[in-house]
Amino acid sequence: MDLRVDEHINYINNRLQIIQSDHVFSFSIDAVLLAQFVGLSKSHSQVMDLCTGNGVIPLVLSERSKAAITGLELQPRLAEMARRSIAMNQQSEQIKIVEGDVKDAGKLFALEQYDIVTCNPPYFRRNTEQAYSQNPYVAIARHEMYCTLADVLQAAGKLLKQRGKFACVYRPERLVEVFETMRAYQLEPKRVCFIHPKKSEAANLVLIEAMKGGKAGLLTLPALAVYDEQNQYTEEFLAYYEGEN
Amino acid sequence: MDLRVDEHINYINNRLQIIQSDHVFSFSIDAVLLAQFVGLSKSHSQVMDLCTGNGVIPLVLSERSKAAITGLELQPRLAEMARRSIAMNQQSEQIKIVEGDVKDAGKLFALEQYDIVTCNPPYFRRNTEQAYSQNPYVAIARHEMYCTLADVLQAAGKLLKQRGKFACVYRPERLVEVFETMRAYQLEPKRVCFIHPKKSEAANLVLIEAMKGGKAGLLTLPALAVYDEQNQYTEEFLAYYEGEN
Repeated sequence: MDLRVDEHINYINNRLQIIQSDHVFSFSIDAVLLAQFVGLSKSHSQVMDLCTGNGVIPLVLSERSKAAITGLELQPRLAEMARRSIAMNQQSEQIKIVEGDVKDAGKLFALEQYDIVTCNPPYFRRNTEQAYSQNPYVAIARHEMYCTLADVLQAAGKLLKQRGKFACVYRPERLVEVFETMRAYQLEPKRVCFIHPKKSEAANLVLIEAMKGGKAGLLTLPALAVYDEQNQYTEEFLAYYEGEN
Repeated sequence: MDLRVDEHINYINNRLQIIQSDHVFSFSIDAVLLAQFVGLSKSHSQVMDLCTGNGVIPLVLSERSKAAITGLELQPRLAEMARRSIAMNQQSEQIKIVEGDVKDAGKLFALEQYDIVTCNPPYFRRNTEQAYSQNPYVAIARHEMYCTLADVLQAAGKLLKQRGKFACVYRPERLVEVFETMRAYQLEPKRVCFIHPKKSEAANLVLIEAMKGGKAGLLTLPALAVYDEQNQYTEEFLAYYEGEN
């Protein structure tokens, strides 16, 4: 396996490994939870992951589905890392990484052909000081520098079949805006799962699944606490993370 | 205390009692949770409870605040029961019950004078078979026969001061619609608390607080489970219900 000098290999879970670099971008638990959350079925044949980064979501999805999986990534360095990680896990047949901009998704890919679109988008607004103080790889992944929530939802709306599903992970602070923008692109929120650092604390993440052209009606799943009061991972978090939920 | 033949007295909590009738309407835990949830401060002087029913929310609020509390109720029988319950708890100085329609709230009361508006509105759409199979007192309280969510939010928008707070309890199935309709009346959702029958089950209620003219940014509080796996009330539910949270 070719590794650059600043790279190392981490485990995603008990089965999958991934190439990371502290200088570029490391996957976080958010992405794995999203990949375990989205509702897959055997009939699904085409899956798209937008803003795929180092490819963590396609890798986890490949454990859950036999569908063809495409990852779209803007940054060449990350796309190239993703491809090497996919090869390392022997998933190059199932997963393809495409370099390109989410805003061009409607030109790069067939319209209304995807069963599932996932995305772990940048969470933070562009116009924050923090966005400019970080290294550019990280800033692009975390802040809406090149890709806003609306860009992602518009792309998902174009790529999804009718009744296809879009799933993302986001900050609950922006949930009202997420719901509103989803509806603007005919994506009806259908399932949410709030993630709390501890069960006694406010949620800091939310998993959201929407259906293209779906009818109104939202299911709020049991809340998921990551740590217990002794700062150990909870059993339910570990089960969810490992795909045993 | 005058009681009609079909009436009896129940405890709301360790301190408050309320007149109920199986033929008319009984308060449920939803209303008490809402009354404990809404953010009150010492500076608040005017509080309104819309669709007040037998007055359970004003009674619980009177334990938490010295503000003048008004309850608005459409059905004369319920308004009259509420007044007797308030007298029984020696709260007739603080709580006034007004008979009238939520849609007339802007004519009945001073505009933009209220710090807090609460409501435990009918949860279910009008056009369901169930709505017509129940006794009319219950049907009106549970279904949108005379009062829709939009009617309630419009009234709250008229009565609240700028930066005043509206709080309601609702079905999470309709959360997307609630958020959307709140924004249509300049009520920005600021805090939510999901109530789960058990922690392993989907939420069946959600408490929502919005601020008139507030800026975007939602806090998702720790989820509240009502029962444990042995079907006993959880400690956190009891603490919340009794106002010890």
